[in-house]
Amino acid sequence: MRQAGRHLPEYRAARGSGSILEAIRNPELAAELTLQPVRRYGVDAAILFSDIVVPVAAVGFGVEVVTGTGPVIAEPFRSGDDLQRIRPLEPDADVPYVLETVRILKGQLDVPLIGFAGAPFTLASYLVEGGPSREFAKTKTLMYRHPDVWLRLMDRLADLSLAFLRAQVDCGVSAIQLFDSWVGALSPSEYSRFVMPASSKVLQGLEGSGVPRIHFGVGTGELLPLMAAAGADVVGVDWRVPLDEAHRRIGGKLAVQGNLDPAVVLAGPEVACSEAARVLVEGGGRGHIFNLGHGVPPSADPDVLARIVRLCHGEEPPPA
Amino acid sequence: MRQAGRHLPEYRAARGSGSILEAIRNPELAAELTLQPVRRYGVDAAILFSDIVVPVAAVGFGVEVVTGTGPVIAEPFRSGDDLQRIRPLEPDADVPYVLETVRILKGQLDVPLIGFAGAPFTLASYLVEGGPSREFAKTKTLMYRHPDVWLRLMDRLADLSLAFLRAQVDCGVSAIQLFDSWVGALSPSEYSRFVMPASSKVLQGLEGSGVPRIHFGVGTGELLPLMAAAGADVVGVDWRVPLDEAHRRIGGKLAVQGNLDPAVVLAGPEVACSEAARVLVEGGGRGHIFNLGHGVPPSADPDVLARIVRLCHGEEPPPA
Repeated sequence: MRQAGRHLPEYRAARGSGSILEAIRNPELAAELTLQPVRRYGVDAAILFSDIVVPVAAVGFGVEVVTGTGPVIAEPFRSGDDLQRIRPLEPDADVPYVLETVRILKGQLDVPLIGFAGAPFTLASYLVEGGPSREFAKTKTLMYRHPDVWLRLMDRLADLSLAFLRAQVDCGVSAIQLFDSWVGALSPSEYSRFVMPASSKVLQGLEGSGVPRIHFGVGTGELLPLMAAAGADVVGVDWRVPLDEAHRRIGGKLAVQGNLDPAVVLAGPEVACSEAARVLVEGGGRGHIFNLGHGVPPSADPDVLARIVRLCHGEEPPPA
Repeated sequence: MRQAGRHLPEYRAARGSGSILEAIRNPELAAELTLQPVRRYGVDAAILFSDIVVPVAAVGFGVEVVTGTGPVIAEPFRSGDDLQRIRPLEPDADVPYVLETVRILKGQLDVPLIGFAGAPFTLASYLVEGGPSREFAKTKTLMYRHPDVWLRLMDRLADLSLAFLRAQVDCGVSAIQLFDSWVGALSPSEYSRFVMPASSKVLQGLEGSGVPRIHFGVGTGELLPLMAAAGADVVGVDWRVPLDEAHRRIGGKLAVQGNLDPAVVLAGPEVACSEAARVLVEGGGRGHIFNLGHGVPPSADPDVLARIVRLCHGEEPPPA
């Protein structure tokens, strides 16, 4: 999981107290933060240290990421007039530091590197709400009241994410993950109408690029068939949906990623390994990428995570 | 939906700036606040004006409800020692004001009155977290690390909710709703092991009491079969699960309640009525209680809600 490093002492030492966007703009530091969990745990892939708001910040929308809060937008998206604030992304000029980070990592990693971007809905929710939200009332109001403006906003954000991901692929990432973290707030009919065109544009725009596309969200049980159909090769599922049911919903040909409840990592090594073993059994026999169902809790004990990785690698027996 | 009054000018005028727990302790005021939406909209049932923390506050756990935040616990539940802080509820002595409110309403209402209580998990989550939460990390940590303490906590809260609901039934409520608002944070296996014994104790304890039992939560798509099996006659569903799918999951004999996305109420009368008409069609032909999928947004326009009620009553045609 992205930003999995927060719980590591070496991460906190390297990051210091600066903003995450500053750290991302420093390729040597971003590469180091990407490498740390690979070095410590020996996981099978690295995920680029970055943030979903990087491209919108890079085109000048005015986004800060506040520690303990998340993205904060000084002047939120209010109307069609704000569309002009989202110009197309020119990766080489706008996010050269991200591309440089990828290049550094390609020279140092022995495992695949996963690139990533935020999906249009989750990005739009931050731009419209002005920050994190629980109910997404402003976002849904814009969506329903001004569907034309909404769909244009989503289309611009799709272009941004697609350009950002294409540039990462061109620099050599081995897979990409599209994070639609908060899209689980929507019903299937809302997803079909208001989200799927834009997310499909991103994922289908990468078809034929040669890299697997992972499509992730939280609380998306009812959306899994649509998230698969949008153009994913792998669908991420949180802990709410058992993996056999997830496979049933996305169809037999795609893989699933997940779905250990991050909270069990806080419950000590026995509970964590016992639950991880259950996930491995439930995911076994067909395409499954073991992962947490959402981010690593900042208070996680690295030793517990190390044991989970060894369990996944068959280097440690499952608890009795 | 409970506390649906917040968006009404007559509610804000009657409530003033006092705490909600103070308002609940005033039977004349609580009865008036219960009656207001019935009077204005002509809905088919009233729901008692109350709060899920009333019984835990009444036995002296130390709970305040802070406007704009929600329940806040000065000394959260930390260990088995805190179990003694949750003594059994004696409704006549501890919550006489709630019973008096029910008696007043029985004399004034022409429609059924729905009583309610918080479900053990949602109550426990407030007691353990100390307030509202998004991840429920402390709650899940207690659950997994100290399952014995957790299950005893849940059992005590079940006794509290059951005593509270039985007293409401004895005073004449026509149905009850058990609110497990945040239980959707759990997986089915977590629900079975850590929640179902307690929620079943409440719901099955009311079997034969002659009143229908509504069991409600948000984001509970994967839990619907278990929430039904816990002993519900009606299962509430938010907007994420289409009603035909909800019926499939809970089995054919129970009714569903829901499931209009509250956000559409903010999108103007045409959108709101069009979406409400869709819900009516999807719920039609088998047991369905029309409702929002969660609370009425405080910024809702009463005229929009009035039109939705008229639409449900067949007094207004659905939008073309």
